[in-house]
Amino acid sequence: MQRWYRFTEHQDSRQSIRVGCEGSDGTSIEVFEGSSILAPGASAGRCVSRDEVRLLPPVTPAAFIGLWNNFHELAARLGQPAPSEPLYFLKSPASLSGADDAIRKPLSYDGKVVYEGELGIVMGRRVRGADEQAARQAILGYTCVNDVTALDLLQKDPSFPQWARAKGCDTFGPIGPCVTVGLDWSQARVRTLVGGRERQNYPLSDMILPPERIVSLLSQEMTLQPGDVIACGTSLGVLPMRPGSVVEVVIDGIGTLRNVFEPQPDAAQASADSLQRSDVT
Amino acid sequence: MQRWYRFTEHQDSRQSIRVGCEGSDGTSIEVFEGSSILAPGASAGRCVSRDEVRLLPPVTPAAFIGLWNNFHELAARLGQPAPSEPLYFLKSPASLSGADDAIRKPLSYDGKVVYEGELGIVMGRRVRGADEQAARQAILGYTCVNDVTALDLLQKDPSFPQWARAKGCDTFGPIGPCVTVGLDWSQARVRTLVGGRERQNYPLSDMILPPERIVSLLSQEMTLQPGDVIACGTSLGVLPMRPGSVVEVVIDGIGTLRNVFEPQPDAAQASADSLQRSDVT
Repeated sequence: MQRWYRFTEHQDSRQSIRVGCEGSDGTSIEVFEGSSILAPGASAGRCVSRDEVRLLPPVTPAAFIGLWNNFHELAARLGQPAPSEPLYFLKSPASLSGADDAIRKPLSYDGKVVYEGELGIVMGRRVRGADEQAARQAILGYTCVNDVTALDLLQKDPSFPQWARAKGCDTFGPIGPCVTVGLDWSQARVRTLVGGRERQNYPLSDMILPPERIVSLLSQEMTLQPGDVIACGTSLGVLPMRPGSVVEVVIDGIGTLRNVFEPQPDAAQASADSLQRSDVT
Repeated sequence: MQRWYRFTEHQDSRQSIRVGCEGSDGTSIEVFEGSSILAPGASAGRCVSRDEVRLLPPVTPAAFIGLWNNFHELAARLGQPAPSEPLYFLKSPASLSGADDAIRKPLSYDGKVVYEGELGIVMGRRVRGADEQAARQAILGYTCVNDVTALDLLQKDPSFPQWARAKGCDTFGPIGPCVTVGLDWSQARVRTLVGGRERQNYPLSDMILPPERIVSLLSQEMTLQPGDVIACGTSLGVLPMRPGSVVEVVIDGIGTLRNVFEPQPDAAQASADSLQRSDVT
């Protein structure tokens, strides 16, 4: 397994984006010459400590997709049949944030904000109309996703379920801390801890549609691009976060995606990564 | 008013992306030095004819947003109250296409595909938490949108309305032909012609939430970036397209967004623009 990070270095006043691969000691990151984990280039011949960097979302997906109802245990609890196709929404690009960013409630919203710990598929190749074998080969690796949701927006209007809105607020899509290449997801569990207390703990083997089937089915209608992220859905244990809580999504072999749910809503600040997107046209 | 285009030139074997502004004759485009209409740079001192170029989507939005139920006449027909907030979905980046691209039904889908002619807002500045005045200033201009929809996917699964899927297939988001800066949308009408026959003809003055209110309300929760596109919703007259039809969305002051609905589904080809997105990480 390889764990790839994307970050800026604290002592770099220009805040250049770097990528790197975790060393065998589990705390150092070998810096590479590229600025995308999709094209890391050659080793730059130096290492940094994870404490010396600010972690960014490991990729910046064009499409950030989230599945609903993809675990047998949750489907049974909801009284829903197991879907034969991915039932999905899109998370806005503005929701994307990293392992060192805070989750912030919009100033305009006073309702419940829930965490949802999930496995995230990270695409490595462009795919369209892929069978499951081609889909498997197009997956670069996996990351942790917190599919944060403004629960009271979802059904606020009885005429129209507001998935894009409830899931798409700024900072509501933390991913990270890294992308793990070579992970055997079927042996892993997703745990979500709030203030250190375990609130979710479910096996990925309970997934209804596995990653290669999700990617294959999505790609029949929508071309997926390198860097696209698909959150595989959550299972039991979703609850509102209290302001000030530390929320950790932990997946074996990937690591811990740790975010603070800011006590105060903040209308003035957006993530550094979304700032950068203004250059992408 | 200025009409800005983004295109490649037929005789340019490298297919470099150009931008330009329509000349006063209405057929020539003055070429600029930049490759984004958000930063066109200086005039390159030459003109091309619209016949000599392949039109691309005038921008490549990070967020491609579509509103539901935003015209009084349609709301009355649907028996729905006028919403006080934008009810929206996200169109996938893969759906984006331009005025010279075909609309293609996915090979996997055999149901109805409908056109929806709409006004598209194009953002010029990054905004968050904007009032209506700031929102108005952040709008660069307007374009035509065909919010193509795989109608039978929308309610295919009774447990989950599939807006992202039905609206997000490859080629289901044509925008163009240009972005008009300085348009008084309140005086304009949207017309949709299928095979030359008028199927939609509605005044934009019938809009429930006007562009500056849409942008202001969206920006309370989600930062909007330059190049983001918001389709303002459609009105009466939506119908399925017959394979081989030519569909034209015409808005006064913007022009005609003309697309062919390909007679044969095609699993092998995606738009040139989505190919380029693979470089954006």
